[in-house]
Amino acid sequence: MTGEQVTSNLAREGDVALLLAGDGKRFICRLCAGERLETHRGIVEHRALIGLPYGSLVTSHLNYPFYLLRPSTSDLIREIKRISQIVFPKDLGYILLKLAIRPGCTVIEAGTGSGGLTLGLAQAVMPTGRVISYDVRADMQALARKNLALVGLSDYVTFKLHDIAQGFEERDADALFLDLPNPWDYVAQAHAALKSGGFFGALVPTANQVIALLSALEAQPFIAVEVEELILRPYKPASTRLRPVDRIVGHTGYLIFARTLLPGAREPGMKPEASEMEANNHEDEEEEA
Amino acid sequence: MTGEQVTSNLAREGDVALLLAGDGKRFICRLCAGERLETHRGIVEHRALIGLPYGSLVTSHLNYPFYLLRPSTSDLIREIKRISQIVFPKDLGYILLKLAIRPGCTVIEAGTGSGGLTLGLAQAVMPTGRVISYDVRADMQALARKNLALVGLSDYVTFKLHDIAQGFEERDADALFLDLPNPWDYVAQAHAALKSGGFFGALVPTANQVIALLSALEAQPFIAVEVEELILRPYKPASTRLRPVDRIVGHTGYLIFARTLLPGAREPGMKPEASEMEANNHEDEEEEA
Amino acid sequence: MTGEQVTSNLAREGDVALLLAGDGKRFICRLCAGERLETHRGIVEHRALIGLPYGSLVTSHLNYPFYLLRPSTSDLIREIKRISQIVFPKDLGYILLKLAIRPGCTVIEAGTGSGGLTLGLAQAVMPTGRVISYDVRADMQALARKNLALVGLSDYVTFKLHDIAQGFEERDADALFLDLPNPWDYVAQAHAALKSGGFFGALVPTANQVIALLSALEAQPFIAVEVEELILRPYKPASTRLRPVDRIVGHTGYLIFARTLLPGAREPGMKPEASEMEANNHEDEEEEA
Amino acid sequence: MTGEQVTSNLAREGDVALLLAGDGKRFICRLCAGERLETHRGIVEHRALIGLPYGSLVTSHLNYPFYLLRPSTSDLIREIKRISQIVFPKDLGYILLKLAIRPGCTVIEAGTGSGGLTLGLAQAVMPTGRVISYDVRADMQALARKNLALVGLSDYVTFKLHDIAQGFEERDADALFLDLPNPWDYVAQAHAALKSGGFFGALVPTANQVIALLSALEAQPFIAVEVEELILRPYKPASTRLRPVDRIVGHTGYLIFARTLLPGAREPGMKPEASEMEANNHEDEEEEA
Repeated sequence: MTGEQVTSNLAREGDVALLLAGDGKRFICRLCAGERLETHRGIVEHRALIGLPYGSLVTSHLNYPFYLLRPSTSDLIREIKRISQIVFPKDLGYILLKLAIRPGCTVIEAGTGSGGLTLGLAQAVMPTGRVISYDVRADMQALARKNLALVGLSDYVTFKLHDIAQGFEERDADALFLDLPNPWDYVAQAHAALKSGGFFGALVPTANQVIALLSALEAQPFIAVEVEELILRPYKPASTRLRPVDRIVGHTGYLIFARTLLPGAREPGMKPEASEMEANNHEDEEEEA
Repeated sequence: MTGEQVTSNLAREGDVALLLAGDGKRFICRLCAGERLETHRGIVEHRALIGLPYGSLVTSHLNYPFYLLRPSTSDLIREIKRISQIVFPKDLGYILLKLAIRPGCTVIEAGTGSGGLTLGLAQAVMPTGRVISYDVRADMQALARKNLALVGLSDYVTFKLHDIAQGFEERDADALFLDLPNPWDYVAQAHAALKSGGFFGALVPTANQVIALLSALEAQPFIAVEVEELILRPYKPASTRLRPVDRIVGHTGYLIFARTLLPGAREPGMKPEASEMEANNHEDEEEEA
Repeated sequence: MTGEQVTSNLAREGDVALLLAGDGKRFICRLCAGERLETHRGIVEHRALIGLPYGSLVTSHLNYPFYLLRPSTSDLIREIKRISQIVFPKDLGYILLKLAIRPGCTVIEAGTGSGGLTLGLAQAVMPTGRVISYDVRADMQALARKNLALVGLSDYVTFKLHDIAQGFEERDADALFLDLPNPWDYVAQAHAALKSGGFFGALVPTANQVIALLSALEAQPFIAVEVEELILRPYKPASTRLRPVDRIVGHTGYLIFARTLLPGAREPGMKPEASEMEANNHEDEEEEA
Repeated sequence: MTGEQVTSNLAREGDVALLLAGDGKRFICRLCAGERLETHRGIVEHRALIGLPYGSLVTSHLNYPFYLLRPSTSDLIREIKRISQIVFPKDLGYILLKLAIRPGCTVIEAGTGSGGLTLGLAQAVMPTGRVISYDVRADMQALARKNLALVGLSDYVTFKLHDIAQGFEERDADALFLDLPNPWDYVAQAHAALKSGGFFGALVPTANQVIALLSALEAQPFIAVEVEELILRPYKPASTRLRPVDRIVGHTGYLIFARTLLPGAREPGMKPEASEMEANNHEDEEEEA
């Protein structure tokens, strides 16, 4: 390990750190010499963390063990403050790939909510891309701003307190995601804001909402409509007693994806789902390692 | 729509394009004026595509409809040539979030395989990060190189034809992923190649392999060990008959994640899983939109 | 093993037997000295089976191994001839418990279909109970009759070729199950045919059908409405490579259950689902062996 | 409705009844004129229930609504008193079909536990069959006896306080189920107690246990070995907001099934799983209603 590398792996003032308690509880904080983390297992002074290498064991004033780590994106999304439901990491990771979010992209989302999806999008489009995030609730956006600032991603996000029923202010966005209760009301606005061939996505919790959104997409120039669900099954990670955990999150939401076409480009008589079954069949080729 | 924006949305020579057939079949190609795509539904000349806006309808010489689109990351991963099983998009998206892969990261993977994971990692670390990909099979790496070149991501990947039993050549990597049949044999090597506090991941298809890997992780300074599975459930996207599809991919593999600690930092008597139950419980806060 | 016991375990003329081929293919037949089973792996003469103990290895004229077994209910349901979709064993077993089907019950079903559910119900209510099975398609009922005769359960079933839109001919049935595309059209008829406090069930493949059926149940004196799905995940049963199989049946149908009340007995303002969340919570008490 | 039918549908002293509270909470009791049910929502006197038709609305002394119903088998299994984990209805229903449990069968189980499986088996084999239930814990069997007596099924069960390491006392049983932590230790004993061609089943919570049991089955004359899991997904049954519930039971246990062969009947070189893939493929024929 070279000296330079060691230095770069030390916790520094201003870092966003994860404190992992011995019982698995996780705490996210921005390190600041004068501050302290107060937990159910005692107090940890930030001052004691600054200068330590990540991967260190520290103890609270009650002598309880904590590990000093950098948070994963999954940790960040799950630990930020929220006043609304949040996009789960399992869904977020998949959304990023299905919408082709990558450095340099311009992405629109509505609503902002607590900023979980915003955070994931911002991290994926940086340093040259941009997220534009719409909401009508000022309190939501205030919290999301705070969350984005905490993790150092504010520079990549433009927040707009604006009702999208009047349309988005952008044109030619690469991708657009609707995370709100009535996405079917904004399908035309979404189409107008996207490049032709752009990526559309949405997340809704009920089957009734999926049905209403599919109806709206069928009436507009969209193709490659997909509806999918991801179920995450965590296991007890014990080598002598491997088993799925007893109680799991059984449902977060249905994911809907589609691609925009030029007006009039959908072949008359062609169903918008077009690609679903085929997409599925490609997975036949899977083999075992 | 401004003139400049329209121009930037035209298919150009050298672009990686997706041709989506009316029946849902997907074709990835790099546009080159002299070439043609030959399909079960007729021939499409690249020349006819270059200069068209994405989102256009084109037809084959048999008059069959195709849509000209940019591929999503999910499309790329599923459509590239393969001679081994491939990491599925559902798993890849989650891996990227759990390993905190973002622009600027240094990530190691072994083995290279057909390059599906390599592609996903490269796209997430660009433009300033780097992927180092190990394999012992020259044919695999040759295919992966070709796949990365096709999608224009070669600049972000270093391929190494090297047996990792002798250790990785890097130190202080941010993250490392093992996608090979016997990851437990390389846990010490992985620990040595990672920063302390680094992100470790692996994917294996059988429960026996999970058990062997957990044993190996329990014997080394790792913490926050998690075992998870993602099940993707696609639906028939018809507004009048919404339902899950009949036959699905029921299993791709088990995902294992862990964080490295400084040697000696794991509290004696502390189980490495440490964070599993808590991680799960945080998801309680989910509400309905 | 006593002589009597041995005798009772010999295959006899008239028995319904399962021939399990070495490659896992299954054949159901009624043993008859003059008949033969013709398979992709050669011919097996029934004469050679009669008098053998169950659990024996036999070989076809091509010397391919077959095992002589009694079929399970699951085998019967999956191997009978069908001209319609069939209720899967995973769903059937659960339906029997949720509808409290037991020896002596009177159960109504519509439609008959190929008789898979009929078979399961008949076996559960015998020897003193009765199944009344309605359908409007004579070809269906003819096949179902043949299937029930094959497995020796005809005595417990009354088939009726009758349109249930005009109502069922029975009153005070213990349980009633609707396995047809538009169950919401027959909810009042079902209520009239059941005892008060009776067990109602239905199976439909799409979310739209579930929604329509729930609406109908909400408008009638039903309580304890439940909607559930069962996902069966088979594993490769190899001790050194235990893993879920790659491709599974991802969806068979949604199960809906409810209880009938006396007219007017549903408390005004009480939602018919009443018991769903509680039902779920009881499962908290599960512990590990 | 005839007078006789009405009479037979009235709650009578000695009936096992289900009281379903308006909030979904369920109470099982045997009606006895001098007793009362005390709940979080007030008291219900049994005397007030006796003579009422099932399907009636009653109210507690706090005027809270309760519905008088007969319990389903699923209700019984979930509501009986327990001091151990219980077989869930979803698993029990499937076990009954896979083991071909029907009126007249002789079935062995070990251990007895709290008697949930015993109850399900007894109800399925009555009136002419028999369940023999082994356990080494007297307190367990005492509770199971009480539970079976409550629901009126004691006549069909023989309890044995006996260590099955010494073997079962029966021969030629139709089916045998092991619900205990180390089933691999009793595979030879189970084989000896079953008819040749008999039905073997087991339930274990961890993958490690499945692996150990598969090893034991591979070493004995068993065929048609299957490992399966059932995942129950309950939905919120609201017609305007249909969706899976947020938190579900993610795991109860792995089910293992096998058939016994005559000693020596397994073809050398034939793998005991023999039938797994085929079994799965038969389900291809499913169509949509």
